[in-house]
Amino acid sequence: MPTELSQPETIFQAMVQKFKDCRRQTEQICAPLTPEDHVPQPIVDVSPPKWHLAHSTWFFEQFLLGPYKSGYKVYNTDFAYLFNSYYNNAGERVLRPNRGLMSRPPVKEIMDFRSHVTEEVLELLSSGNAVTEALEILKLGIHHEQQHQELLVYDIKYILGHQPTFPVYGDSFVLKAENQEFSWIRMEEGIYEIGYSGDEFCYDNELGRHRVFLEPYQIGSKLVTNGEFMEFIASGAYSDFNLWHADGWDYLQKNKLEAPLYWHYTKGEWYHYTLNGLVPVDPSLPVQHVSMYEAYAFAEWKGLRLPTEFEWEAAADRFSWGQLWEWTGSAYLPYPGFQKAPGALGEYNGKFMINQHVLRGASAATAPEHSRKSYRNFFAPASRWIFSGIRLAQSL
Amino acid sequence: MPTELSQPETIFQAMVQKFKDCRRQTEQICAPLTPEDHVPQPIVDVSPPKWHLAHSTWFFEQFLLGPYKSGYKVYNTDFAYLFNSYYNNAGERVLRPNRGLMSRPPVKEIMDFRSHVTEEVLELLSSGNAVTEALEILKLGIHHEQQHQELLVYDIKYILGHQPTFPVYGDSFVLKAENQEFSWIRMEEGIYEIGYSGDEFCYDNELGRHRVFLEPYQIGSKLVTNGEFMEFIASGAYSDFNLWHADGWDYLQKNKLEAPLYWHYTKGEWYHYTLNGLVPVDPSLPVQHVSMYEAYAFAEWKGLRLPTEFEWEAAADRFSWGQLWEWTGSAYLPYPGFQKAPGALGEYNGKFMINQHVLRGASAATAPEHSRKSYRNFFAPASRWIFSGIRLAQSL
Amino acid sequence: MPTELSQPETIFQAMVQKFKDCRRQTEQICAPLTPEDHVPQPIVDVSPPKWHLAHSTWFFEQFLLGPYKSGYKVYNTDFAYLFNSYYNNAGERVLRPNRGLMSRPPVKEIMDFRSHVTEEVLELLSSGNAVTEALEILKLGIHHEQQHQELLVYDIKYILGHQPTFPVYGDSFVLKAENQEFSWIRMEEGIYEIGYSGDEFCYDNELGRHRVFLEPYQIGSKLVTNGEFMEFIASGAYSDFNLWHADGWDYLQKNKLEAPLYWHYTKGEWYHYTLNGLVPVDPSLPVQHVSMYEAYAFAEWKGLRLPTEFEWEAAADRFSWGQLWEWTGSAYLPYPGFQKAPGALGEYNGKFMINQHVLRGASAATAPEHSRKSYRNFFAPASRWIFSGIRLAQSL
Amino acid sequence: MPTELSQPETIFQAMVQKFKDCRRQTEQICAPLTPEDHVPQPIVDVSPPKWHLAHSTWFFEQFLLGPYKSGYKVYNTDFAYLFNSYYNNAGERVLRPNRGLMSRPPVKEIMDFRSHVTEEVLELLSSGNAVTEALEILKLGIHHEQQHQELLVYDIKYILGHQPTFPVYGDSFVLKAENQEFSWIRMEEGIYEIGYSGDEFCYDNELGRHRVFLEPYQIGSKLVTNGEFMEFIASGAYSDFNLWHADGWDYLQKNKLEAPLYWHYTKGEWYHYTLNGLVPVDPSLPVQHVSMYEAYAFAEWKGLRLPTEFEWEAAADRFSWGQLWEWTGSAYLPYPGFQKAPGALGEYNGKFMINQHVLRGASAATAPEHSRKSYRNFFAPASRWIFSGIRLAQSL
Repeated sequence: MPTELSQPETIFQAMVQKFKDCRRQTEQICAPLTPEDHVPQPIVDVSPPKWHLAHSTWFFEQFLLGPYKSGYKVYNTDFAYLFNSYYNNAGERVLRPNRGLMSRPPVKEIMDFRSHVTEEVLELLSSGNAVTEALEILKLGIHHEQQHQELLVYDIKYILGHQPTFPVYGDSFVLKAENQEFSWIRMEEGIYEIGYSGDEFCYDNELGRHRVFLEPYQIGSKLVTNGEFMEFIASGAYSDFNLWHADGWDYLQKNKLEAPLYWHYTKGEWYHYTLNGLVPVDPSLPVQHVSMYEAYAFAEWKGLRLPTEFEWEAAADRFSWGQLWEWTGSAYLPYPGFQKAPGALGEYNGKFMINQHVLRGASAATAPEHSRKSYRNFFAPASRWIFSGIRLAQSL
Repeated sequence: MPTELSQPETIFQAMVQKFKDCRRQTEQICAPLTPEDHVPQPIVDVSPPKWHLAHSTWFFEQFLLGPYKSGYKVYNTDFAYLFNSYYNNAGERVLRPNRGLMSRPPVKEIMDFRSHVTEEVLELLSSGNAVTEALEILKLGIHHEQQHQELLVYDIKYILGHQPTFPVYGDSFVLKAENQEFSWIRMEEGIYEIGYSGDEFCYDNELGRHRVFLEPYQIGSKLVTNGEFMEFIASGAYSDFNLWHADGWDYLQKNKLEAPLYWHYTKGEWYHYTLNGLVPVDPSLPVQHVSMYEAYAFAEWKGLRLPTEFEWEAAADRFSWGQLWEWTGSAYLPYPGFQKAPGALGEYNGKFMINQHVLRGASAATAPEHSRKSYRNFFAPASRWIFSGIRLAQSL
Repeated sequence: MPTELSQPETIFQAMVQKFKDCRRQTEQICAPLTPEDHVPQPIVDVSPPKWHLAHSTWFFEQFLLGPYKSGYKVYNTDFAYLFNSYYNNAGERVLRPNRGLMSRPPVKEIMDFRSHVTEEVLELLSSGNAVTEALEILKLGIHHEQQHQELLVYDIKYILGHQPTFPVYGDSFVLKAENQEFSWIRMEEGIYEIGYSGDEFCYDNELGRHRVFLEPYQIGSKLVTNGEFMEFIASGAYSDFNLWHADGWDYLQKNKLEAPLYWHYTKGEWYHYTLNGLVPVDPSLPVQHVSMYEAYAFAEWKGLRLPTEFEWEAAADRFSWGQLWEWTGSAYLPYPGFQKAPGALGEYNGKFMINQHVLRGASAATAPEHSRKSYRNFFAPASRWIFSGIRLAQSL
Repeated sequence: MPTELSQPETIFQAMVQKFKDCRRQTEQICAPLTPEDHVPQPIVDVSPPKWHLAHSTWFFEQFLLGPYKSGYKVYNTDFAYLFNSYYNNAGERVLRPNRGLMSRPPVKEIMDFRSHVTEEVLELLSSGNAVTEALEILKLGIHHEQQHQELLVYDIKYILGHQPTFPVYGDSFVLKAENQEFSWIRMEEGIYEIGYSGDEFCYDNELGRHRVFLEPYQIGSKLVTNGEFMEFIASGAYSDFNLWHADGWDYLQKNKLEAPLYWHYTKGEWYHYTLNGLVPVDPSLPVQHVSMYEAYAFAEWKGLRLPTEFEWEAAADRFSWGQLWEWTGSAYLPYPGFQKAPGALGEYNGKFMINQHVLRGASAATAPEHSRKSYRNFFAPASRWIFSGIRLAQSL
């Protein structure tokens, strides 16, 4: 995080507004849900929506109100236990696979908790007593909640998309076709600077700005489409082990996969679940809900490869991106000179830097503040419930 | 099931009333729950309350309205798929461990489905066209729903009892102390008749009335109490493998058990979760929520044994019972001459006749119609979420 | 065990001979094996042959030489740890699934251990100092080793039968066709005496001789044949859930079973692995290597049932048996008045009296001393590596 | 692999000699084992020694004799099935976890197979007909067998080290203390060339020689010692989650780890199993048998980090290495321009390029031909049975 922060009144007011917007946005994402939809945890990766509602609130209480608002009394001592996620330093937590068993507190109580904390934060801010450090926490809390907004969308899609009745959520987060021909963007060999530079917010994993040498390469101007992916499927690729990582192949066999997540083959045609219900797959749209294994196998099939995260960042100003997180060929590792933040917040990124792959870009569910070319998203290679897509590259 | 049934008007009216009462009772059991409480399936054995609400309704639609109400149109074709339980003959079903993922249809829609089916059944009955066979199905459907009422109570207790906040459900289903001294009831050797005799409803597994020879024995006049069980615990019984079945001992180790389900040792005292919340264990009440393994080990510790189901039934008129299902030493097996009902309803009992143990009696959550001495309840020996207790016996 | 024992010299000499024969027989069973064949533990139920060789020897050292031979020094203190099986009272033991990892001590060392203990036991006996109690232990040790001889045969067959090369073991333990027509043996209703009576050796689970009342029934004069079982398979029985226990059906699905253990369908014909290698299934021989689930389903398919263990014992003098253990419809439970032996030997039978089914009869691998009509063999219902077959019965 | 190869007679003779030496060396590694020791597969990662003996032989038969020796007849058609490892393109294979069940063929038969193939290869070579391509395969086969020699040593240590009796294997593969003080080696920022250059054998994963830019750093002159690691343990590091990756922490908890593999705390002192038996841990020796998770946590504890594989390679000429594979901070990924070999041999490396971490250096069990600074060894981060150690680095 940047170490300096100027806070003239206008910047401060903007932040108050951003906080309010952020809180409202989370609640709007959940608005189409029934109370029952807030409860299930169908797989370990997916958290119940009510958990996201409460956890993003707990974060402000735990890290902002507790330390910085004098006389603040914890709303409900149980909640710290129930809605901690993975901050071992912040005390006991409910084991992740058990989140789906917590029917209590009900959604209504969680919304009361949200209102309470929102009010208290606004009161803290209006008091004029908030120190610089607190504003840093506020900013982090907003970004944290925005990350959970994106996860909320994934998780809601997973929960609804696994109802046998395929219910409709609504029109938000719609994917659009990229109206351009595919072309190669050629990049010269040389030293490129990588990592965040600027004085806005960024995460610790983007810092440690540094130089990398890139051999010459080219990168695709547009994402792989559903149409191309259907060809890949039709070619028998899901049963040709030569295209896959050994782990990817095992993963296919074990889970009996033969298409991206949410795809169903019915009456001679591919359908997929979208937030608008079950619809035929549109060949012109970018393919989404693929794992790293599928992205890699598709590239192998094409005789191409995925770009590294450095190649992606170096070229990012030359193509349009932002609809779909793009798998890169890079494992998620620390930049040279990476520093963890002290205390519980230091658990944010560093401890995940193993067995994960980097995605670059942004998705239709990403908050605008998170759309920057240095942003490093990361997931396990098998993850498919995220809004993930494929861009290809080639060494020259 | 009895093959003959007289149905003069009064009997018929009584049955209509019983049907209405039964439907209302199920809904009353769920009344204290939030919509969210209806969703989770914390373990495979426990079904979401909304599933019980819908499944017991589906049963009437599938087996009564479909075949017997002319022109009946299925309420929602999805529901047959969603709310079948284990009737393979009645079509595809949702795999049991996935029930907790179904947030849709919401409780409200299920209640509409309930009302609809209740009305349709009443209409069928009032038409005067219901044939004898249909009335048999009605009767079975009522008993089926009553069985689910009991499971509902167990499942609700499990769901609420595993919330970190131990919420209160209410005063129903309260256990009372047995106000009598313990004494032995002596039973002579001889031939006893076992199985249902009478012309009321009974299940197929109670039929095949037959003779058994019993060697002389005695059976306790009252159930084992919490006080006695606390002595058993205090003696170190949970770490003395000599008292346990080999499977029971493995089960203890694997699940790290040291007391009945819902018991917590806090500040030097035993508490347990009841439907009234977390309260100190009352030594005068019968112990409940023990597995067959614990019941057996307790008997071993006393130098006694559990009665067989035949010994229990032969002596049942000589002691008071009905608060708590009592583990017997008998495996759940067919009586000589046991006949499965034809069709899907034949799946009711016979296919479970392995790896299960018989419990006799009834519990505070049992419908009065199910309280008869020939009733054979059965569960896997490890089951603890049922309302189970212990009565002791001894060979003479 | 009988409480009285006369030991004139001739009986004593017979026992010494029996001991020698028993020790030699175990070694002959292993003679066709390579050292490598003694090592694997392919499933938890199957123990490595070298483990049987050592464990049956350890039993004599632990329970006979230790307590009764003055000045006896334990051969190797590690062995007590390595070769205990399930006697928790006799100290720490190697967890059962890890037996297949113990390449040390090699077979040669175990044979030395065997010779040593055999010699020491003979020395104890020749000293004339062996007390009655020691002779009881000797007798139990012989019977114990004989039980392990039978398990050895099962386990060797399993190990060799799962080599991709189907190696030949040899001619022993051959099954013969029953040369007779099938007929029904009718049994009258009445009180029958059940359990061991006599003054030879028997196990504690056969005692508690007692009376049972049997309703009239008939029992088959011969075992179900491979030919009949092939008809059952050909009828589609392995995919008709109506024939199976719910647990049996799950077991079929999970393990993708469609025939008895060791059967392979190749080039339009059924073959099975025997100790003579892979050969075509002979329709005239009794079917073997079926689970309780398959035995039950076969009986259902025939519209018949399995006999209870009491029905079997009551009728056993009227048909020939002894080639194949026969699944009964009885769960393995204590007889009235069952008493466990004191100390570690008390763990022998009682603690297994749950989740197991009784088999009656004997197999081609059973020692003659174990062939008696009161003998209660028992295994989990899913067991198929034992030499198990099917006899049918019917209520009248 | 290099595309050109000159083969004057002397080079050719050297290769024949290398082949003979390689075959003999494998057999010498197994010489101290009993036949029984060749059988177990205690964990999935560890293969039975007899499998290595046969698989390294099968490789020559499958890829060299079959295609290049005219009229060659496969020794035993079963063996191709039994001893394939992970070459999906070369046909069906025995699933890896089942290798430990194959007692047949016995070691003796495998040694006959080895002799046969060795002779046939020598005959092919002596015929003067071996084409360049065949010599490439021969070379690859030798390197392949040398890799298995190293795995053999790991696997033998694992098998013997998990016998409750801790048997002695012998003096080979002994670790020596590094007789020097620790110092930092400073490396300037700049562009470094990475990957194999030369005309000897190398693996495909070392090719794609390319440039990387390194920021300034320093790297330790010697490996972390047992003494330092005991301090790390004594500090409570195994229970401080702040030091660990999230996955590493889960791995610790799940496996209850508190020291490197083979370490046992007894009577107030650390012992560990070595190929010379169980001995006290020598503080002056390099620590070995640590996972990537432990290597990372140790570096965190020191406030330092692991070097990347590029930093390691760039500095490798300035420190002594070769006793112990060194975990780097780099995930195992393809170099730019990486090309898989065509056909089955293309499965060698590429398909493992995910979820693995790179180790650089060599171990006491590594063949001298594999000790080169460009060699990329790789294992899953949790692996501990390999000969792995820790070297530290720091950004400047």
